[in-house]
Order: sequence, then C-alpha cells, then structure tokens
Amino acid sequence: MTHKPTLAVVGATGAVGRVMLQILSQHADVWGEIRLLSSRRTAGTTLAVRGEQVTVVTLCEEALEGVDVALFDVPDEVAAQWAPVAVAKGAVVVDNSAAFRMAEGVPLVVPEVNPHAVRARQRGIVASPNCTTLSMIVALGALHAEFGLTELVVSSYQAASGAGQAGVDTLRAQLSLLAAEPDAGTAPGGVRRAVGDGLGPFPAPLALNVVPWVGSVRDGGWSSEELKIRNESRKILGLPDLRVTATCVRVPVISTHSASVHARFESEVSVERAHEILATAPGVVLFDDPGSGDFPTPADVVGTDPTWVGRVRRSLDDPQGLELFVCGDNLRKGSALNTVQIGELVASEPAAS
Amino acid sequence: MTHKPTLAVVGATGAVGRVMLQILSQHADVWGEIRLLSSRRTAGTTLAVRGEQVTVVTLCEEALEGVDVALFDVPDEVAAQWAPVAVAKGAVVVDNSAAFRMAEGVPLVVPEVNPHAVRARQRGIVASPNCTTLSMIVALGALHAEFGLTELVVSSYQAASGAGQAGVDTLRAQLSLLAAEPDAGTAPGGVRRAVGDGLGPFPAPLALNVVPWVGSVRDGGWSSEELKIRNESRKILGLPDLRVTATCVRVPVISTHSASVHARFESEVSVERAHEILATAPGVVLFDDPGSGDFPTPADVVGTDPTWVGRVRRSLDDPQGLELFVCGDNLRKGSALNTVQIGELVASEPAAS
Repeated sequence: MTHKPTLAVVGATGAVGRVMLQILSQHADVWGEIRLLSSRRTAGTTLAVRGEQVTVVTLCEEALEGVDVALFDVPDEVAAQWAPVAVAKGAVVVDNSAAFRMAEGVPLVVPEVNPHAVRARQRGIVASPNCTTLSMIVALGALHAEFGLTELVVSSYQAASGAGQAGVDTLRAQLSLLAAEPDAGTAPGGVRRAVGDGLGPFPAPLALNVVPWVGSVRDGGWSSEELKIRNESRKILGLPDLRVTATCVRVPVISTHSASVHARFESEVSVERAHEILATAPGVVLFDDPGSGDFPTPADVVGTDPTWVGRVRRSLDDPQGLELFVCGDNLRKGSALNTVQIGELVASEPAAS
Repeated sequence: MTHKPTLAVVGATGAVGRVMLQILSQHADVWGEIRLLSSRRTAGTTLAVRGEQVTVVTLCEEALEGVDVALFDVPDEVAAQWAPVAVAKGAVVVDNSAAFRMAEGVPLVVPEVNPHAVRARQRGIVASPNCTTLSMIVALGALHAEFGLTELVVSSYQAASGAGQAGVDTLRAQLSLLAAEPDAGTAPGGVRRAVGDGLGPFPAPLALNVVPWVGSVRDGGWSSEELKIRNESRKILGLPDLRVTATCVRVPVISTHSASVHARFESEVSVERAHEILATAPGVVLFDDPGSGDFPTPADVVGTDPTWVGRVRRSLDDPQGLELFVCGDNLRKGSALNTVQIGELVASEPAAS
C-alpha cells in the first residue's frame, strides 16, 4: 500500500480485542490510523494502543468508511452481518469468528502455514481459525511439509478463557468456593455441592474437574469444537481427505490450550528429524527433554506467542506415527495474534497498493 | 476353601490400604480373620474394618503365618522383597505394585475381563494393573469381546492422588497459594512464582496447569506410565501385538483418572451396538447423552466403583474406529477395589479348599 493503511479493530473492548491492541502496540507499526469499534454497550471506553488513548466508537456504516483492513473479533452473527458491510466499504476483513471459516472463496489462514492463501480471497474476507486448531497447526504444518500428514488423533486440554471472560470468572469463583471445602474433590458429589449453580458457560463444574464437552451438539455425538478441528485442519493444510478425529476437553487452566496429538505420515519418521524441523520452524518452540523437566505446560506458555512442542516420540508400533504434546496461548496465537498477523500480511501485499 | 480364609492387608495405613478396608467392610464378608500389616513407622495405628477396630502390626515373617490371601499395596521394592516371603508361608499374594505385573508366570488380572487368568499363577502371586490402565480396560475389554481390538491411542487426564497423599496435599497447597493471586494463570510465569518450590511429587506446578509427564524417563522419550498402559493392556487382553500408544498427563483433579481413547477394531463398529455392549457390561456405567449434559467427569465419578463411559462416537473417517471418554476412581477400581476383587476371586476358588 502506498499510504499507511487504516486499520479498524472491531470488538476492541473484548478479551481478544484487548490482546490485539497489546500486540499492535508491540509489533512493527505498519498502520496509519487505528480505529477502535465495539457494540453500543461498550462504546465510549478509552483504550491504549501504540501508547495513545483512543476512544472506542460504535460499530456502524459510517465508522467503517475509509478502512483498509478490519480485524473482527465479535460473535458469529455479528460478523455475518457486518463483515460484508465492511467489505462493501472497501475493507479487507480478517474475521476471527466461525461465520466464514468454511465458506467457499474465504481463505482460512495461518501465516506460518499457508500465507499464499490470503491472495485467493474472493469475498474480501480472510478467516482466522478456531483457537484449538491454532494451538497445534503451526507445528503440524511444519511436520506435514516434510513427512506428508495422513491422519490426526487429537485430545485437547482447553483453558477456561476459551469460553471468554465469563469462563475465567467462573473458574476463579469455583476455586474460591472449593478452597473452603477441604473434602470436596474426594467425596462423591462434593465438587458439585460446593460450586452449586455457578457453572457459568460450562456444562459441569470445571474446578478440580475436567469436562469432556466444548461447543454445541452435532450429529453422531460430536461437539462443534471437535468438527472444527477436523474441518479447519483439512482446509488450512489443503488436505480435504485428511483423517482427523478429536475429543475436546475443558481443563481448569485460565489460559493456554494444550493438545495431545497422534499424527501419522506418508513416510517413516524419526524423532531426530522431527526435532530438527520443529527447532527451526517459524512460530514454534521445541521444548523436549523430560529428563531435565523440559516439556511445555500452560503455566509456562501463557503470555507467549509461539506454539510450544514437547514429548515428541515415534509410535512404538508404527514407524510412520509421531506423538506430540503442544501448548499455545489461546488468546495470543490462538486468536488475537493470528488475526493481527493476517492483517499485517494483507497490508504487505503489493497488489493492495 | 472349607474354612473362612485368613486375609492380610499389607500396607493397610496407606491411602489405598484405607480404601481397601472400606471396601472390605462394604462387600459380602468372605473372610475369617483380617490382619492389618504396615511398615514399622505406622504400625500400632488402629483402623476400622467390618465395624471393628483392628491394631496394625509390623510386616514380618511371623505376621504372615497362617495367611491364606495377602493383599499388598506397598512400594515396588517392598513388594519385591515380601511377596515371595508371604508365598513361602503359603499365602496367595495379590500385588498392587508394578514389581511383578510383567513377570512370567504372574497373571495380571481384571476380574471383569480375564478372571480365568487367576488360575494360571505359577508363582503364588497375582498382580493388579496400574491405575491408568484400570481406568479404561473394563470398558475396552467388553468392546474387544465383540469387535476385536487392534489399536489404542490413549491420552490420559490423571488425578493428583495417583501420586499418593503427597500429590493431594501438594495440589491443595498450590490452590491455596493461587487463591491469593488473582492474576496468576494469566501472567507469564505467574503460577510458578505463586507456588514457589512447592512442587511436591510433580515435575511442574499442577494447580491451574496440566503436566504432560507421569512416571520416570524411558528410552525414546516415553514415560514409564505410558509404557505400563501399553504393556499391561496387551497382557490383560491377551493381545501381545496390540498397537498401543499413550500420552500421560496429570491434571488438577484430586481423585479419578480420565482417558480419551481412540480404539480401532477388526470389524466395523456402530455407536448403537457399542452402547448396547457398554450398557450391559459388568463394572461399566454408560453415561452418554451430551445434549442432556450426560458425560462422565471426575467430580461425578469419584467415590464410585465402576468405569464410566461417555462421548461414544464412530470415527468419521474410519468405520472401524471408536472414540470414548472414560473415568474411573483411581483409588477404587484403579487400585483398592480391583485388588480386593482379585482376593475374593482367589477365595472363591474350589481348588484352594
């Protein structure tokens, strides 16, 4: 672009929107004006970006005038309504909702994996994947480039903040209630009695528990979150027939999603070569020496940008199989960071000048 | 047996030993004398069993005289030393440690799966499996009997009590420290700072975290716990070539292990038939209607005997694959209950009369 492009952050006052502003303040500044938009309810708030205080304005047609790139982090139905409006005004929309991810003509982009796809947009919209897919796909993309991925079996360990601030508040409130009940957690029904009706966005108590359900009910007993992992991994990697199966589980962690991944490849694999690939892959940190206590955990990964990978093993009964444990901060690479990275990729396109 | 057999509980004062005494007090009483043994350190304690107070005596040769069945829950090295002594005195030893599980001539028994194996003992010892294997194997054994198991991919969600009372105390202490730090869990390094050196038996903070490491380091980056799941599943099911891969992860739950299981079979599977099998399998509770909030979680399963199974799905890309989420109380079926059940099986043998 010949001028510094104008950026709109739509949903600036939400948990992910606020992380976007932090990241925009930390990254090399490619933007001209940065405009902050939100629903009428939170408009008027003042937020800091690039060291300046900016007042948030209500999302409306007028507020989208002159915008070159709009980063959307809003509910699916708001994105479905407003992204086409922004496109009609001439903006490229980078959408972090699920509204357009699987739509024809809308690329689903992870800049480390398929940056070229950003150019193929036909509808002026580029989608950013689900946070759970994003917690693992950068590492898997790097391994796929070398070995050729054929199958994924994923079990997730998803943090409370994936359910928004309400999820975080609920987990903290439950932990406070349980702190006063030394026998909860060992007595049958003790956790449920202690937390009472305070389940927040979760279908069961989360503190001192794990909850094998994330999302809404789909055919065959699947959750929407599990199908997202399958569909989005296929689209990002350009492998429409990739065998993918996932079980999504919420765990009592504030932020950072983890996943245990069994991956099969077209060719034989070795831990040594996998280590070489992961140690040099952009956006990946290899942290894999259990004898020294080196494996990724959410407590160590939270607040960082990369996908952390450890516990790399070759399947004992399958020379084409690898086991991995990956962690990624669901509020950073899992949503805000990937969205900002796509925006920067769009801004750097010569064709957009 | 013509007389009511004499039972010894070796390790009676430990966490699992105490649960054994509860279970012995609840089950139909097949025993004559019940003798309680422990290390010198805790001997002299008085514990209730069958409504009577019994004084714990020090484990020694004399204390094993006249014992018909001895249930051992002691560290591996203590079992390795004392189980043969008890056998030499004429007892059948049911051992809950890892000392003899993979030994030739020692059956590894889950009464719902391979009760016949108890007769094949050549060394007077019957071993009870690891708690993580036990959390899933009853359900898998039932499905194997119908469909023929060929492959398992397991990711575990293991409770703190799997590391003993020290694990439980550590998790509770960490949660107390974190209750005073509202930003721990969102700030990089916040959890580690809050819990300080108080890691107890775990290699990383467990509160507000998940730790992808259980056990000790083995070749190829595997943990001892992961290899136990593979070796023990093969031995219990009588499938020495079963393909098994596991990733073991500790989660901030007090008691009850969970596992996400991808199982492949020789024949095509259906959710309907799997539901029928699981609904009628001894020792299994099928709890699988996510739309009504019915899926097993540790908070609901703790303190109960069965293996709870939910989230049953047929793999979308593999008609021979099933996904399951299973929960089992690691202190009950995962250790104490299975050991007592094996003891009762031995006591019921006509050949032992």
